[in-house]
Amino acid sequence: MNDQILDKADSLALLPNVKVILVGTTHPGNIGSVARAMKTMGLSDLVLVDPQTEINDKSYALSAGAKDLLDSVTIKPTLEEAVSDCGLVIGTSARSRTLPWPMLDPRQSGEKLIKEVSDYPVAVVFGRENSGLSNDELQLCQFHVCIPANPEYSSLNLAMAVQTLTYEIRMAALATVDKTKEVEKQEYPSSENLEGFYKHLEETLTEVGFIIKAHPGQIMAKLRRLYNRARPEVAELNILRGILTSTQRGRIEKDTQAKED
Amino acid sequence: MNDQILDKADSLALLPNVKVILVGTTHPGNIGSVARAMKTMGLSDLVLVDPQTEINDKSYALSAGAKDLLDSVTIKPTLEEAVSDCGLVIGTSARSRTLPWPMLDPRQSGEKLIKEVSDYPVAVVFGRENSGLSNDELQLCQFHVCIPANPEYSSLNLAMAVQTLTYEIRMAALATVDKTKEVEKQEYPSSENLEGFYKHLEETLTEVGFIIKAHPGQIMAKLRRLYNRARPEVAELNILRGILTSTQRGRIEKDTQAKED
Repeated sequence: MNDQILDKADSLALLPNVKVILVGTTHPGNIGSVARAMKTMGLSDLVLVDPQTEINDKSYALSAGAKDLLDSVTIKPTLEEAVSDCGLVIGTSARSRTLPWPMLDPRQSGEKLIKEVSDYPVAVVFGRENSGLSNDELQLCQFHVCIPANPEYSSLNLAMAVQTLTYEIRMAALATVDKTKEVEKQEYPSSENLEGFYKHLEETLTEVGFIIKAHPGQIMAKLRRLYNRARPEVAELNILRGILTSTQRGRIEKDTQAKED
Repeated sequence: MNDQILDKADSLALLPNVKVILVGTTHPGNIGSVARAMKTMGLSDLVLVDPQTEINDKSYALSAGAKDLLDSVTIKPTLEEAVSDCGLVIGTSARSRTLPWPMLDPRQSGEKLIKEVSDYPVAVVFGRENSGLSNDELQLCQFHVCIPANPEYSSLNLAMAVQTLTYEIRMAALATVDKTKEVEKQEYPSSENLEGFYKHLEETLTEVGFIIKAHPGQIMAKLRRLYNRARPEVAELNILRGILTSTQRGRIEKDTQAKED
């Protein structure tokens, strides 16, 4: 259990080694929105290649709580320089290029980036708002990634594309934890107590006339199936038994009253 | 509906039957950005519950090529009315609520919504920008979904959250292409019928004296949690309602008898 927690921490601790590179960005607001999207997913290394705008008030406003990423941004004149230390570079691209290239979907990209980030810096590259990455830039990438959007309207905003890719990167990091999730401590009743509840339930349903003793049918089997699916905890079973007791007591009081009247 | 899951084309064709419901949205721009995010993922049914703003020029500007979604938006006064025809409702929530609820991650949510959307309308619900969904609203949902964000900065913009969830919904629809699974056929009640049951349950528990009107406490919330976890099918809900009716009728008979005696 301790090992799993450590693995998880280590894997998430590597997220800052995944660079997000924006090439030729035009809108200052997009740079801020990208910073925010990155930080929500635990990434922090934002690189701008040949930006066509300054980082300004609009960028800071849209970055919300991710101002630190804008303050520590790296600026490079070319993509080649930005990726020079990276062992894996994945570039975003529309699917139908004249130059066929190894294509990944966002999920595969996240998995590949996380698998390799412990060995060297890795990067995911996003192109210009209007024209994407040039063919020369795409050839600097070992893989291309395409978000499988609606073919009739595939225009994701730049920050939305970053959110989607960084979400998959984070999901891949989280998945390296063994599937045994931290289970909230729940206390389940013993079989004996559960059977006690079913007996009490049958008794009460017979008393209120919902179960006819001579023809009980499948009612109890169906109710067992329902409650077993919910798997009542101890506290919940106590509530259910309390309801049965109230139902019976109500009836006894009425009976007594009937006799007294 | 046959027993095989639908093929890819059919599965994508069902995406418009997945509602995106925004509750109490404050910023007109967010409504536009949400429309754009939805359309890129092939969704089109946008519902606003009690919006705190008009759809205005800013909404249209940010919707980009998704203006048609804004033109066909549905507005409802309450979440209860918005989901009344839905067989599955998943609400976005932070993880640590005082009342634990069946939690899904975005991927599981996408898979569940796509698995069931051929049978009835389904919905994913997003809360207010600042305060999310209320506890009452969360209790109208069978499942909660939490985007596993950076715990140190988990503040996704509303449209970013919609982009992430709808991306997973689209990925799930695309994944049905080569997985021809056997699907268990289950018929789930609409939210309206489920709410009818809870109302009937509360009424009956008050009559038998298990719920004290002046001090109802957390009983109904706890019972909702239990039954939502079991997710009663239509036939099972009928049994549960039959039990309530028998309990009430039993009491009426006793009353009558008491008077006659």
